[in-house]
Amino acid sequence: MADDKLLDKVISLAKRRGFIYPGSDIYGGLANTYDLGPRGTELKRNLINLWWKEFVHKRPEIYGLDTAILMSPRVWEASGHTSSFADSLIDCKNCHFRTRADHLIEDKLDIKVEGKSLKELAKIIKDKAINCPKCGKNNWTEPRAFNQLFETEVGIITGEKNKVYLRGETAQGMFVDFKPFIDSIHPKLPFGLAQLGKVFRNEITMGKFTFRVLEFDLAEFEYFIEEKDWEKWFEFWKEEITRFAHLLGIPDTKLRWRSHTPDELSHYSKRTEDLEYEYPFGFKEWFALAYRTDFDLKNHMAKSGADLTYTDPQTGKKFIPHVIEPTFGITRSLTTLLLNAYHEDKEKNRVVLKLPYKLAPYQVAVFPLLANKEELVAKARQIHALLYDQFVVDWDDRGNIGKRYYSQDEIGTPFCVTVDFDSLEDNAVTVRNRDSALQERISIDSLIPYLETKLNQS
Amino acid sequence: MADDKLLDKVISLAKRRGFIYPGSDIYGGLANTYDLGPRGTELKRNLINLWWKEFVHKRPEIYGLDTAILMSPRVWEASGHTSSFADSLIDCKNCHFRTRADHLIEDKLDIKVEGKSLKELAKIIKDKAINCPKCGKNNWTEPRAFNQLFETEVGIITGEKNKVYLRGETAQGMFVDFKPFIDSIHPKLPFGLAQLGKVFRNEITMGKFTFRVLEFDLAEFEYFIEEKDWEKWFEFWKEEITRFAHLLGIPDTKLRWRSHTPDELSHYSKRTEDLEYEYPFGFKEWFALAYRTDFDLKNHMAKSGADLTYTDPQTGKKFIPHVIEPTFGITRSLTTLLLNAYHEDKEKNRVVLKLPYKLAPYQVAVFPLLANKEELVAKARQIHALLYDQFVVDWDDRGNIGKRYYSQDEIGTPFCVTVDFDSLEDNAVTVRNRDSALQERISIDSLIPYLETKLNQS
Repeated sequence: MADDKLLDKVISLAKRRGFIYPGSDIYGGLANTYDLGPRGTELKRNLINLWWKEFVHKRPEIYGLDTAILMSPRVWEASGHTSSFADSLIDCKNCHFRTRADHLIEDKLDIKVEGKSLKELAKIIKDKAINCPKCGKNNWTEPRAFNQLFETEVGIITGEKNKVYLRGETAQGMFVDFKPFIDSIHPKLPFGLAQLGKVFRNEITMGKFTFRVLEFDLAEFEYFIEEKDWEKWFEFWKEEITRFAHLLGIPDTKLRWRSHTPDELSHYSKRTEDLEYEYPFGFKEWFALAYRTDFDLKNHMAKSGADLTYTDPQTGKKFIPHVIEPTFGITRSLTTLLLNAYHEDKEKNRVVLKLPYKLAPYQVAVFPLLANKEELVAKARQIHALLYDQFVVDWDDRGNIGKRYYSQDEIGTPFCVTVDFDSLEDNAVTVRNRDSALQERISIDSLIPYLETKLNQS
Repeated sequence: MADDKLLDKVISLAKRRGFIYPGSDIYGGLANTYDLGPRGTELKRNLINLWWKEFVHKRPEIYGLDTAILMSPRVWEASGHTSSFADSLIDCKNCHFRTRADHLIEDKLDIKVEGKSLKELAKIIKDKAINCPKCGKNNWTEPRAFNQLFETEVGIITGEKNKVYLRGETAQGMFVDFKPFIDSIHPKLPFGLAQLGKVFRNEITMGKFTFRVLEFDLAEFEYFIEEKDWEKWFEFWKEEITRFAHLLGIPDTKLRWRSHTPDELSHYSKRTEDLEYEYPFGFKEWFALAYRTDFDLKNHMAKSGADLTYTDPQTGKKFIPHVIEPTFGITRSLTTLLLNAYHEDKEKNRVVLKLPYKLAPYQVAVFPLLANKEELVAKARQIHALLYDQFVVDWDDRGNIGKRYYSQDEIGTPFCVTVDFDSLEDNAVTVRNRDSALQERISIDSLIPYLETKLNQS
C-alpha cells in the first residue's frame, strides 16, 4: 500500500461518516477511549454476529457464555493476573511523559523485548541512550511494574475485602464457570466455551486508533481437550482463525503467523501464535491462539477447592482437561477492517469502503429522489419497511443523489435504491451498486430476491 | 399465580438448565453478580436483537451508538451524578448488617420513600422502631449518602485527575456524542440515539436474582424533539413500550404503569412513568419512560463549552432539543421472562418454559435416537448443518428421548427433531412440539418450511 497517511485518512473518514468518535471529545477527551457512531455500531454488530454464527451456532460442541465483568478478587489471584499482568512503566523526569519501557525500546530499536525483566529493560535504555520522544532529554525514572487490572470497590462489603478488579480477559469467566457449566450441560470432550464482551486494561500506551485502548471487546473461546490431542487442535484452530480472517475480506498478503518466543510467552501458555495484520505501523497482533495447558483449571481447583475435573463417560477416568484458546480482538478489528477496506477510486474521484457485503453497516440505502415531495417520501418509506425485516437499511433524503452516492460509498453500502417520479408509475426503482457504480432499474416486486442474490455473491 | 416459591423454582431451573449461574460461585460468590450460561446467553441475544430490530432497524430516524464505559469524570459532574446518584446507606451496629435505609422502610411498611432526605428516613426508622431484619436489634447508624458510581483510576494520567467512573447509565454517552453525531449524520428532528450495553451501580441491596445487580445491560434511547411536542411523544413511546412488553409475551394482567411522585423524580426529569411487572415480590419497575427535558444537553453545553444546539434546516432556528427516554432493563428482563414463562404442566408431569418462540434460546433441538449408532449421529449432524443457517439449534445425544424432551421443555425449545432408524430409509424425522407435546413425521426436504411456518405463528 505504502500510503503513510492511510491511518490518518481512515481516522478522518471514521469520524466524518459516523463510524468512530474519540471518547469524551467535548470534554477534551479521555485518552485511548473511543465511541462507536451509528455506522461503527452496525459494523461491530455484523462482525460479532458473524463470529457467533461461525464459532458457536455452527458448532454443536461450542457453547456461549456471558459472565460478569466484576468477579471475586480471588479469581485474579488464582489466575496469576494480580502478580503477572503488568506493564513496565517509565517516566521522563524532565517533561513528565509517561510510557511503557518495552514500547519505548521496541519503537526505537525495532526489536522484541516482551518477557524481559525490568532490570534488563533499564539496561537497554541506558546502553542505547534512548531519549524521551517528547522532549528529547535522557532523564528517565527506573522502569517499574504497573498492573494492568483496573481496581474498584464494591460497597456492600465492608472491610478489606471490598477491592475488586475489572476483568482483563474474558477467559477467567469461562474457567470459573467450568463447574456449573459441566453440571448443567453435561458436555462430552472436546467442547468449547465461547464469550464475547468488554475487557479492561489499564494500558500505558500512545494508542493507535482502536488498536490499543483502555476498554475493548474480545471474542474468545476455551476449547477443552485431552492433553495428548493439543497439537492436533492447535493446528485445527489455527486454520479456522485464518479462514475467519479470509471471511472478513483480508487477503493473505496482509497476514502472517508469528510464534511467541519462550521469553515472550504469557505465564499460562506453552505455545502462542499471533495472526498478525500488516498495519501502517507494521505487522502487529490481530488475532491470537494460545495453548493454555491445564494451568487455569488446575490453579482454580487448588485455590477454590472446587472439583474441576472432567469425567470421561465411557471410561470413568477423571482428569483436568487442557485448553486451546483462540482470541479475536473485536475493537482492534474495527481498525483492521477499515484500513483494509479503504480504497481511493481515482478514476471516479471517490473513496469507497470495500467492506465485504455481509459486514457493511447497511446492506441497502433507500432514497426518495426529492425530500420535499411527499409522494416520493411515502413510497420510499414503503420500500424501507419492505426491506428492514431482511436487511439493515439506511435512509437518506439530504442533498442530491450524487452526494448521497458519494456518502454511501464512503460508508461501504453495497446497494442504493432510489425512488423517483417514474417509480410512482412503473413500480420500479433504480438500484446502484457500490463497486461498479452501475445502475439497474428493478421492479419493486423483485427487489428482495434481486438484493438477496447480489448480496450472497460477496 | 400465588406461588410463593416461584422465584426459588425459577432460580433453581435457571442454574440447573444453564441459564443463569451465581457469579464467582466456586469462590463463595460475589454478591449481586450473575453469569449467563449457554441458554441465558442465547435468550439475552434474542432479546437484544429483537429490541434492536424494533427500535433501531425498523425506524429510519433512530440510530445506534456504542459508547465507552469509561468517560471523562467531567461528564458525571455535568450530569449531576457525582452529587445526586446516591443511596441511603445504614448499618446495624450490632450485627454489621448493611442495607439501604429506603429499602429497609419500604420492605417493612409497604410505602414509597424515594426522594426523601436522609433526615426524613432516619426519623421514620426511629418513629416506627424498625429493627434489623438480620439480628432483630434496634441499633442503627445514622443513614448516610453512598454514591452509586463505581470509581477507578486510569494509569496513563498522572496527578489528581486520574479518577474515572464506570458509567451508571448509557444515556450520557449519547448526550456527550450529540455533537459528533450531528456533525457526521446531519439528522432531522425528531431523531433518536439508541444504545445497548453494560452499566454499573454500586447498589446496596439484598438482590432478588437478576432484578437488582451490580452490573447489568440496559437498552435505552434518547428521542430528541421540540419542547412543545413532549407530551405527544411521551404518549407515543409509552404505547410502544407496552407493545414491546406484549411482544415479549407478557399479558396485561401482569403489567401496570405508575407515575413517579414529585418527590421521587430523578434530578433530571419532569415526568417519569415506570412500566411495572408483577414479580413474586410485588409490582416493581421493569421498563421506564422519562421526560428528561433539555437538562442534560444544557448542562453539557454549559460545562464543556461545546455548541450542543440543533439548527432547524427549514427555519435556521437554533435550539437545544428536549428528550424523551425509554429505558429497558435487559438483565432484569431475564428474571421477568423466566418468571413469566415458568409453567408446571401437572397433567404431563413436566415443567415447560413457555417463552415466545422467537425468544427461546434454541428454536430447534436435534437428537440422534442413539448416540452410539454412527449412522444416526451422522444423519443428525446433517440436519444440524441444514438448520443452523436459519435457526439456533441445540444438540443432545445423552440419555433417552423422554429425558431429552423433559430437558428441552425446561429450556423452552419449541421443536425437537429426532433422527431414528426409519430416517435412514424414509428421509423423514419426528418433530415434536413443546406446548402440545404432539409429534409429527416430517420429510427432511420440507423440514425448513415446516419449521418456518410453525415458528412464525408464535
